[in-house]
Amino acid sequence: MKKIYEGKTKDVFSLENGNVMLKFKDDCTGKDGVFDPGENSVGLTIEGIGKANLETSVHYFELLKDAGIKTHYVGADVENATMEVLPATVFGHGLEVICRLVATGSFIRRYGEYIEDGTVLDGGYVECTFKNDALGDPLVTGEGLAALGIMTPEMFESMKEQTLKITKIVADDLKSIGLDLWDIKFEFGYNNDEVILIDEIASGNMRVYKDGKIVEPVELTKLILNR
Amino acid sequence: MKKIYEGKTKDVFSLENGNVMLKFKDDCTGKDGVFDPGENSVGLTIEGIGKANLETSVHYFELLKDAGIKTHYVGADVENATMEVLPATVFGHGLEVICRLVATGSFIRRYGEYIEDGTVLDGGYVECTFKNDALGDPLVTGEGLAALGIMTPEMFESMKEQTLKITKIVADDLKSIGLDLWDIKFEFGYNNDEVILIDEIASGNMRVYKDGKIVEPVELTKLILNR
Repeated sequence: MKKIYEGKTKDVFSLENGNVMLKFKDDCTGKDGVFDPGENSVGLTIEGIGKANLETSVHYFELLKDAGIKTHYVGADVENATMEVLPATVFGHGLEVICRLVATGSFIRRYGEYIEDGTVLDGGYVECTFKNDALGDPLVTGEGLAALGIMTPEMFESMKEQTLKITKIVADDLKSIGLDLWDIKFEFGYNNDEVILIDEIASGNMRVYKDGKIVEPVELTKLILNR
Repeated sequence: MKKIYEGKTKDVFSLENGNVMLKFKDDCTGKDGVFDPGENSVGLTIEGIGKANLETSVHYFELLKDAGIKTHYVGADVENATMEVLPATVFGHGLEVICRLVATGSFIRRYGEYIEDGTVLDGGYVECTFKNDALGDPLVTGEGLAALGIMTPEMFESMKEQTLKITKIVADDLKSIGLDLWDIKFEFGYNNDEVILIDEIASGNMRVYKDGKIVEPVELTKLILNR
């Protein structure tokens, strides 16, 4: 087992069967000791958060499997905080796919003159940003991804369609425990001619509200897992 | 004749026949006295540039008319620096549509880690930015324009298709006098259920190169008009 990548919140190892193993760490993105899914740097360490994020991911990847949506998920060893996944090539140097059900955050910072914070985006809105801390994660269009040779228009459409379906499944699950999903961040990869969901689906990747108040990720993880 | 809008480089009047009259001014966008099509504020005044921009616009709007592409252009009175156009509703508070044939400028500032300055973008790349000086003209996707209720996906596709056609006509014309078009900025509007090209097509809206060196707008205008 060889470490092939050391990430902010996960380390990545290659397995002998050709698959890949993700080791979930206890580091979280944030700033000044406050957990913030929108931040790009490690801001704090919370004991046990790696395992909790893995459990959350397993919960959602199993829901997606049940719904017939193929992802990179193969299986997990929660005790050791590891998840076995299909190998996949990331797009560019990392591309984030955001689905927004309610307008907030950077969407409002960009388009606040046209829409109020908290406005419902009917049917959901999908956008992509490149992971680039120095540039503040620049937005990129489907046309831009094609022009840069990163993804064909067909791959972009498939990714967009999957994102809307997956977001609906997560939102419906959260709704069933009284929570409102506002937005969620995914990562996709390329595996055997297919665009599939990769990485994790954890509380640190979503903005969730309960009775009009935001639910912090650590609390959200508890609500999702201890239902 | 009533003034309905005072712009950076043009004033807009309503005509009694229901059309609109644009009065081209001698003010140019730029910074510190240097003409820069990428800038949003008036940086200098050049005597006669209003008329020259109008003449350039007339040249290109006539070429588009010959090619069967409907625009807002009705006619012009070059002596008085005015152009009669169809009335049109702009999208949002002003939306710029950029067609890039060669990657440079803000495209490189955003995506420079993926592409080199000067790379040809095969078939052309179209992107939209909102006019918003304080935010540095934020990029917006077709999905974003739909989510903000500014334009349907069908209108976006029509605008994209027209932009590619119009850019090819301008690029071919420039090519015929030994010039290379790198990128060009348009504005579209909504008129009687149709998305049509509005505003102007002048040297200040394009980046043009000759033998690998950029041609400044004043010189470009001369090359286009005195052929």
